[in-house]
Amino acid sequence: MLEHLSLDFTRLRHAYDHQDASPVAVVREIYRRIAAHGDRHIWLQLAPLDAVLQQAAQVERRRDAGERLPLYGLPYGVKDNIHVAGMPTTSGCADFSYTASEDAAVVERLNAAGALFIGKQNMDQFATGLVGVRNLDGSCLNAFDADYIPGGSSSGSAVAVAVGHVAFSIGSDTGGSGRIPAACNNVVGLKPTPGVVSTYGFVYCNRSFDVAPVFALTVDDAYQVLDVLAGEDRRDLYSRPDPLLSVNAFGAGFEFLVPHAEQLEFFGDEQSARQYQRSLQVLAELGGTPRAIDLSPFLEAGRLLFDSPLVAERLVSYGETLARAPESIHPAVRASLQKAKSYDAEQTYKTLYRLRELQRETHHTLQGATALVLPTYGRLPTCAEVRDDPLEVNARMGRYTYFANPLRLSGISVPVGLRDDGLPFGLSLLGLPLHDLRLRDLASRLQRHAAGRLGATNWSLPDAV
Amino acid sequence: MLEHLSLDFTRLRHAYDHQDASPVAVVREIYRRIAAHGDRHIWLQLAPLDAVLQQAAQVERRRDAGERLPLYGLPYGVKDNIHVAGMPTTSGCADFSYTASEDAAVVERLNAAGALFIGKQNMDQFATGLVGVRNLDGSCLNAFDADYIPGGSSSGSAVAVAVGHVAFSIGSDTGGSGRIPAACNNVVGLKPTPGVVSTYGFVYCNRSFDVAPVFALTVDDAYQVLDVLAGEDRRDLYSRPDPLLSVNAFGAGFEFLVPHAEQLEFFGDEQSARQYQRSLQVLAELGGTPRAIDLSPFLEAGRLLFDSPLVAERLVSYGETLARAPESIHPAVRASLQKAKSYDAEQTYKTLYRLRELQRETHHTLQGATALVLPTYGRLPTCAEVRDDPLEVNARMGRYTYFANPLRLSGISVPVGLRDDGLPFGLSLLGLPLHDLRLRDLASRLQRHAAGRLGATNWSLPDAV
Repeated sequence: MLEHLSLDFTRLRHAYDHQDASPVAVVREIYRRIAAHGDRHIWLQLAPLDAVLQQAAQVERRRDAGERLPLYGLPYGVKDNIHVAGMPTTSGCADFSYTASEDAAVVERLNAAGALFIGKQNMDQFATGLVGVRNLDGSCLNAFDADYIPGGSSSGSAVAVAVGHVAFSIGSDTGGSGRIPAACNNVVGLKPTPGVVSTYGFVYCNRSFDVAPVFALTVDDAYQVLDVLAGEDRRDLYSRPDPLLSVNAFGAGFEFLVPHAEQLEFFGDEQSARQYQRSLQVLAELGGTPRAIDLSPFLEAGRLLFDSPLVAERLVSYGETLARAPESIHPAVRASLQKAKSYDAEQTYKTLYRLRELQRETHHTLQGATALVLPTYGRLPTCAEVRDDPLEVNARMGRYTYFANPLRLSGISVPVGLRDDGLPFGLSLLGLPLHDLRLRDLASRLQRHAAGRLGATNWSLPDAV
Repeated sequence: MLEHLSLDFTRLRHAYDHQDASPVAVVREIYRRIAAHGDRHIWLQLAPLDAVLQQAAQVERRRDAGERLPLYGLPYGVKDNIHVAGMPTTSGCADFSYTASEDAAVVERLNAAGALFIGKQNMDQFATGLVGVRNLDGSCLNAFDADYIPGGSSSGSAVAVAVGHVAFSIGSDTGGSGRIPAACNNVVGLKPTPGVVSTYGFVYCNRSFDVAPVFALTVDDAYQVLDVLAGEDRRDLYSRPDPLLSVNAFGAGFEFLVPHAEQLEFFGDEQSARQYQRSLQVLAELGGTPRAIDLSPFLEAGRLLFDSPLVAERLVSYGETLARAPESIHPAVRASLQKAKSYDAEQTYKTLYRLRELQRETHHTLQGATALVLPTYGRLPTCAEVRDDPLEVNARMGRYTYFANPLRLSGISVPVGLRDDGLPFGLSLLGLPLHDLRLRDLASRLQRHAAGRLGATNWSLPDAV
């Protein structure tokens, strides 16, 4: 009977509350599902079943002893660039791998809150890619159609949630890695403002603005995890002391921002274009008024991510492997890293100034609006398209995601229903720094309005709590 | 009779209030003093007398019309790396020079407050030096003894105040340029927390942490200028929106920090060592309790200023001149800039991370204490010493000043009485970011306790208002 249990938080808790399931039983079921699943590349490493069963038994005892455990018995995985003590951190590259001595801050917090760590998930190597197929040892499959990319770089993290292996995952997001695979697999990708969730214990791409996104089946589930994770951590050099701004429901009327029509680009994907336009109609039905803005400064900030000295921040983590074992690195990833070596210090400062100017300008644009509303991806490409033109197809994926973290924005990719061809689509809501909670209400209503499947499961959204 | 007027704010205002002087008359007197003064290298450019007289007449009319002018009729100068519309900005280098089209933000604010701009002051070329003798067209002289350096890089700004040419000056301070020449000429050098005073319209050394210091005869005068200058300016990319923390008088008992004895280094200058120890005694008499701390993380941050990619930030301003006319640059300055070209982007990020760690660590150390108390300079060298070993002597000058801005500290150099040999000395108080006003009370009491001459004038501190 657990075989058909949905792992959305509402149904899982209902099962726990009504003794239809226990954490121990759910763990066994999860390992059964993973073993039974056709896609062997979602998980790079699983925690030993015995250890997880012990962990599950322990959270049962903790709860019985009266401890408040906000994520009681919720199974989760993390992307394999996040440290879990005693396990290798591979970042998708065997030659990079080393055993972590300490849990990442997110793992610490999740375990303390009663969540159950299951394992470590596949990813574009070095978290450098948005396609999910930059792997030398096998890529995971799109949860809907294996001809299409799973999206990356947190590919395994999104797919594991979509297919019901875990209740949520923690990935990493520098240029869209927490949103693109969410959109490609019909799940939520909640990307906090840089500094809100500690990235202590991550292998960094851009340490100065990497974030820890949450993948979940529902918007409300994702925000419950954020609630546990948010908070200052002095071990993270870029952690912010500022609290998140409080929620203000958008009420009957609200304004949302969209790009000028000529700045919308779907790279020939008509299905995607149509789904985006439908979403805008839904927003209007929800009481929203669109205002067209110039997307250029956002796009310029996005281009800086790989076409400027910003890319050199990745060398701090990966430069040693690049020097020692270049052949162990996927050619597309290697090309990015090699280019990074060409920038000097003066160029770096000039770029940091320009980025600050763009922050000023874009934040000004976002003032007063509930969100900037964009398609998460423009075109959903097939794996074959990526093989034919790996760099260009990847770069296109980042058009609507690259800029968010360099600009320090809050954001979420919401599944707003499948396209007419049955493939997933995501709508991105982007807000000012620390406005994370302010996106929640709108994101939640959008998902509810779409009323579709949860991930790739047969379940639909549970009734509102 | 104006011939003997002190330009401290109290006496100048008293003269205005009692019709003993008018702004117009004071301007004439100032031009007389400048013309009569033996040192021709304090000022690089003077505003045309006629224009300043008109300006003086205008502030008189504005006041007569009822306008509140907090700096009414106070004459000031600015260092020649600060833009004044229509005048060349030389930064101490003829080949760098170009005519500014706009006033710097500080000039705008000062003029609006009724202050009278007199001219532009000498400096170590490119504000890169702490000695005040890195000039190819003549250096200004120490106001006390021409055998000794005037200190830099805001040499003219400090000396002009010390000898009574202006009531205050605005310099720039990256690694000590607003404090060292204050200490060398017995005036106050108030260095705000980076971002508190707009540096819009400055030629930057390190745009990300350059500040606009105030030179004045008294602590209270300097803070009155800061009061006019502080405030967000969106044209300055590093301007902070945060208000200054409010004053809390230190009361009967307070704690101040000093380095472990073995970390104090006076480079053989016994007079300086003695004056520092005396100052600590004064602090004890004022109710202070010293606590010895490890200065190493401060010193490490200081070393980054020139021995790391941080120095490359200067190339953004001066790289073009370095490429086009290297011979126009003082050899010591040129050496710094040339070294800056050797750093790459990855090294830059590593350094920025390290600097952030050092900020965390040093801010933690400063928590709870009123100030870290250091000599502003270790040794006051002669000009001959600089000629013999220009790089090493200059680097020594920065031991107690280099770190303050990279670490985002507040600070002030206070004249605490002449040394036994009659030469000036400065005591530096350094505090947490935005604690600028919290240093005021202690700085003011220290100056009052010393009860010495104002700058190189024959006047002593006016009675407390």
